Amino acid sequence: MTTPARRGRPRSEGTDGRILRAAHELLTERGYDRFTIDEVAARATVAKTTLYRRWPTKDHLLVALVAKLQDDVEVTDTGDIRHDLTVYLTAVATGLDRMRRVGRDTAGQADRSAGVVAELVSAAARHPDVGDAVRGLFARRNALPLRLLDHARERGALSPGASSEVVFDQLAGALYYRLLITGAPIGAGYVEELVDQVLTGAATTPHPERI
Amino acid sequence: MTTPARRGRPRSEGTDGRILRAAHELLTERGYDRFTIDEVAARATVAKTTLYRRWPTKDHLLVALVAKLQDDVEVTDTGDIRHDLTVYLTAVATGLDRMRRVGRDTAGQADRSAGVVAELVSAAARHPDVGDAVRGLFARRNALPLRLLDHARERGALSPGASSEVVFDQLAGALYYRLLITGAPIGAGYVEELVDQVLTGAATTPHPERI
Repeated sequence: MTTPARRGRPRSEGTDGRILRAAHELLTERGYDRFTIDEVAARATVAKTTLYRRWPTKDHLLVALVAKLQDDVEVTDTGDIRHDLTVYLTAVATGLDRMRRVGRDTAGQADRSAGVVAELVSAAARHPDVGDAVRGLFARRNALPLRLLDHARERGALSPGASSEVVFDQLAGALYYRLLITGAPIGAGYVEELVDQVLTGAATTPHPERI
Repeated sequence: MTTPARRGRPRSEGTDGRILRAAHELLTERGYDRFTIDEVAARATVAKTTLYRRWPTKDHLLVALVAKLQDDVEVTDTGDIRHDLTVYLTAVATGLDRMRRVGRDTAGQADRSAGVVAELVSAAARHPDVGDAVRGLFARRNALPLRLLDHARERGALSPGASSEVVFDQLAGALYYRLLITGAPIGAGYVEELVDQVLTGAATTPHPERI
């Protein structure tokens, strides 16, 4: 996603941090449609050229911002896979819920729209480089819960035939599906039921490996 | 989603069908960005006013088109839940894959973008009435697989504690997550693994209800 600096001069962490904080503030205040890159530059007190060199469009800036928000979600391996998945997915769901409400006046009405996450999805579909950046972001980020699932399988808590990727798709997929498609709530109660269901399975006939 | 006709005159099925067929052709040929409502009207040989009265924006037309495409996917209850889910989800995945490639020149490159489905998601997030229409569309459509799961539970094939909605979220969610977020393939092999995983569960410790 990042364009290498033309002059080879390393950009300070401080500048990037200031830009992303300003972008986050504007996003939260107004929503994705209602601010410009120039306004981000002004609020961050950074030259527009610096900002455009780093993130050529608002979509690129959005990917960087989502990456930062994702990094705030911790993945902890306590050895209890049910607990660890529940804690992790509750944090993901809380983050998604916050992004769904960003920049919208939700007083007195249930806003079930997908907001910023939908913008991310559509930007990824429209611009190949943004798409690559988004997929790269999720690949890097999802490596953590995938490792958590791998460890659980290694210590015998997950079935040897269960693919970490498929299990993770079921978990994260259900949250994103409700956020982006059905608009159904993704609160703590839902996350617990989801984790339980993914771990125990829907069928009454046990898998042969389990007998 | 539909605006009631001003004059109370019922519109013929033929006109709607012609409009949707024209829209589908243009979408397939060029992609969502590269055609206008006026071009749909011209190709369908329908007055622009007729089209705008029925579907005021391209986003509204897209929802109607996706509804039509979804109705082409059959849900059959043979009494074998694993088989029925696999057939249904393979059809869904095939449809999603087709929409992902719509209007794009994929010769010589793997296009992993989400295309039309991403447009639908972002239109739903941006315009409250389109959002309501999309959620209504999926609620109506998903009632069929949800009933399939309910029947399977009633005849004892699914665990009494398994919620049809949560099970369905895992299945459909995984497909949409791969389509919209990670860009991973959703071919027949994946669908079979997914259905198997959702039915049997990831954990080695069986659920108490099963013993």
